[in-house]
Amino acid sequence: MSHASVTRPSLEIERAELEGRAERLVEHVRAERLTGAVIFDRDAILYYTGFAFIPTERPMAFVVNQRGEKVMFVPRLELEHARSRTGIERIESYVEYPGDPHPMEVLKRALSELGIRDGIGADEDGYPWVFGYRGPSLSELTGTRVKPIRAFIEDAMSIKSPAELGLIRESARWGHLAHRLLQRYTRVGATETEASLRASHEATLAMMETLGPLYRSQSMFSEGASAGYRGQIGRNSAIPHALAGNLAFQRGDVLVTGAGASMWGYNSELERTMFVGEPSQPQRQMFAHMVRAQDLALEALCPGARCADVDRAVRRHYEANDLMRFWKHHTGHAIGLRYHEGPFLDVGDETVIRPGMVFTVEPGLYVPELGGFRHSDTVAVTEVGIELLTYYPRDLESLIIPAD
Amino acid sequence: MSHASVTRPSLEIERAELEGRAERLVEHVRAERLTGAVIFDRDAILYYTGFAFIPTERPMAFVVNQRGEKVMFVPRLELEHARSRTGIERIESYVEYPGDPHPMEVLKRALSELGIRDGIGADEDGYPWVFGYRGPSLSELTGTRVKPIRAFIEDAMSIKSPAELGLIRESARWGHLAHRLLQRYTRVGATETEASLRASHEATLAMMETLGPLYRSQSMFSEGASAGYRGQIGRNSAIPHALAGNLAFQRGDVLVTGAGASMWGYNSELERTMFVGEPSQPQRQMFAHMVRAQDLALEALCPGARCADVDRAVRRHYEANDLMRFWKHHTGHAIGLRYHEGPFLDVGDETVIRPGMVFTVEPGLYVPELGGFRHSDTVAVTEVGIELLTYYPRDLESLIIPAD
Repeated sequence: MSHASVTRPSLEIERAELEGRAERLVEHVRAERLTGAVIFDRDAILYYTGFAFIPTERPMAFVVNQRGEKVMFVPRLELEHARSRTGIERIESYVEYPGDPHPMEVLKRALSELGIRDGIGADEDGYPWVFGYRGPSLSELTGTRVKPIRAFIEDAMSIKSPAELGLIRESARWGHLAHRLLQRYTRVGATETEASLRASHEATLAMMETLGPLYRSQSMFSEGASAGYRGQIGRNSAIPHALAGNLAFQRGDVLVTGAGASMWGYNSELERTMFVGEPSQPQRQMFAHMVRAQDLALEALCPGARCADVDRAVRRHYEANDLMRFWKHHTGHAIGLRYHEGPFLDVGDETVIRPGMVFTVEPGLYVPELGGFRHSDTVAVTEVGIELLTYYPRDLESLIIPAD
Repeated sequence: MSHASVTRPSLEIERAELEGRAERLVEHVRAERLTGAVIFDRDAILYYTGFAFIPTERPMAFVVNQRGEKVMFVPRLELEHARSRTGIERIESYVEYPGDPHPMEVLKRALSELGIRDGIGADEDGYPWVFGYRGPSLSELTGTRVKPIRAFIEDAMSIKSPAELGLIRESARWGHLAHRLLQRYTRVGATETEASLRASHEATLAMMETLGPLYRSQSMFSEGASAGYRGQIGRNSAIPHALAGNLAFQRGDVLVTGAGASMWGYNSELERTMFVGEPSQPQRQMFAHMVRAQDLALEALCPGARCADVDRAVRRHYEANDLMRFWKHHTGHAIGLRYHEGPFLDVGDETVIRPGMVFTVEPGLYVPELGGFRHSDTVAVTEVGIELLTYYPRDLESLIIPAD
């Protein structure tokens, strides 16, 4: 091609954006007068480097020093993977865990060579003891003071870039398809597992065929699109986080769904309350209260407001209608590389809402014997208001599954 | 029924066994002269209480004091769930996170009421900062010394009871089915996603129909049986933990599989090296070396030996045959409620192998351009030897997929 520039389709976060994130981390290190920062958390490493991995007993870390030098610390097992997936030139590898010497001795040497000594920033004081890993904390290893910088990292992650918003929008699209199929395959006599596996399976194949090489999951929890019930069926729907049994749908069931798709590590959340057959009058009323509460939350959610304001708007409606006895959880949470992130739409969270934040808005009502009632939509905050990222019908008539 | 006793089919760990585990924890608290123990880790809470949950920003904990009193600490959201799933009488709940007051203030009060003060044992010094949670460490909260007891807990978890072995055996069975279907649906032109989704989907449905009410997943990562490739296809098979793209199978591919099923939280691991079409002579040779290394590891694995001995047996074979340049990882890891647990079949792990331990045995060889070669089998240690829990064919001819 003879063009001066050809931009190819891509959904991947560009290297320049990753480098900008790391640059802000280096600025934080300098501002805090630290000698460097060590990041162990899987999602934070993905955020700063684009490198997705499944954490095991083998510790990994991303390290920067105050001069802006970057190092990836990985087991030999991940060496080629880290080389091919990050633009980071310096990769320090150790042979194996527990191995001999212990991997942390290799990290200690690398930190020393980078001039990282007293005054180290870290998301955690050492690699967490997951999957059987045991080892010294970072402060034990280096004999120096470790300053937690997790809050700085999470604040940075809470403001999404246009590319990140694009990924969450794309995630919402395939979650929508999975949910559409879930609704279609949910029928009296079918089981939760049949409906959710079939919907997830078909939506994932459609997504893979559609996006082809543009797609990567980069999630620890899923490899595509999914929709299901997590056991929130019939009477169990009054238990918000029931873990799935394998129930068969019956006329009269109230269902609470969940759908999404992992997209280069980013997530969206779509949840709906559905009915098998015509809902009763009390169920219709409770559904209407829940939708009203969600509307109030969406109205309260805007740049400059506080997270607590949104939750208070919901609670005011519940209190005015004697519904607090059916309340069980706050209005929502931020979402991105994690399914749940801070800040929270919660009376205890006074964070000011800013453009680029993405929240789930999901006030619920859980009524013994009657059912659980919750929609969840994923919403981005803009300069002037909000952008709804999920777009599944919210009205009751659209969410009734025929039982005849 | 007029019998004095009727035992009903069940796969669930019995309450008496859970109580025995907690009793040993209390004994440890007393032996270490601690006032109590606080456990935050999801898998450890499942181990001691049978309560499975998905950790979020809402902290949970299991607490015992030196008098043997037990408390579950949960958000209101999980209150009914915790009541219905544990035999623990005392459940302390807080309203919400971050809420007001912070959940940790509720925990602090509960610890005080239990007489848990200076000298607290804990698996971690506070609830980990996952999913946006922020809060004080346990030592900050209580102003007292916190002694890590994670190693004690992991040592306890490493010796499986007959009931736990039964669950891992059951897991292996359904992993076998998923793998059998994966092999069947892996064909030239089909994609990785098609084959793995179809196999996992059908195996899960068959398992759910077969076990019915006896089945619960209790896993954070899967809701049934699964089999797939994690991108270890063709040239990528030389990268052990490649995250999946969506490759189409071609003649000449070397494939490395993975299969298992979550069973009341317990896992097994089955991996095989397969070929699309006839392997080349160098591939046959490398396959034979890998199988030989696995045989040597299985021979070395016995009660009274050390974990390091097993890894050394593999390395000796590799060194004698100039294969260390294709080595990338240790021989295996313990498995149970976690996919990877300690101890490790690794030259750096001198743990003595004891009856009741369960390991994966999975020496690998990764040859650029030629492919990756790894079988993984799950093996229990008995009083007199080992019990193979996985039973999929290991021989080359059984693992060739016709390419005609």
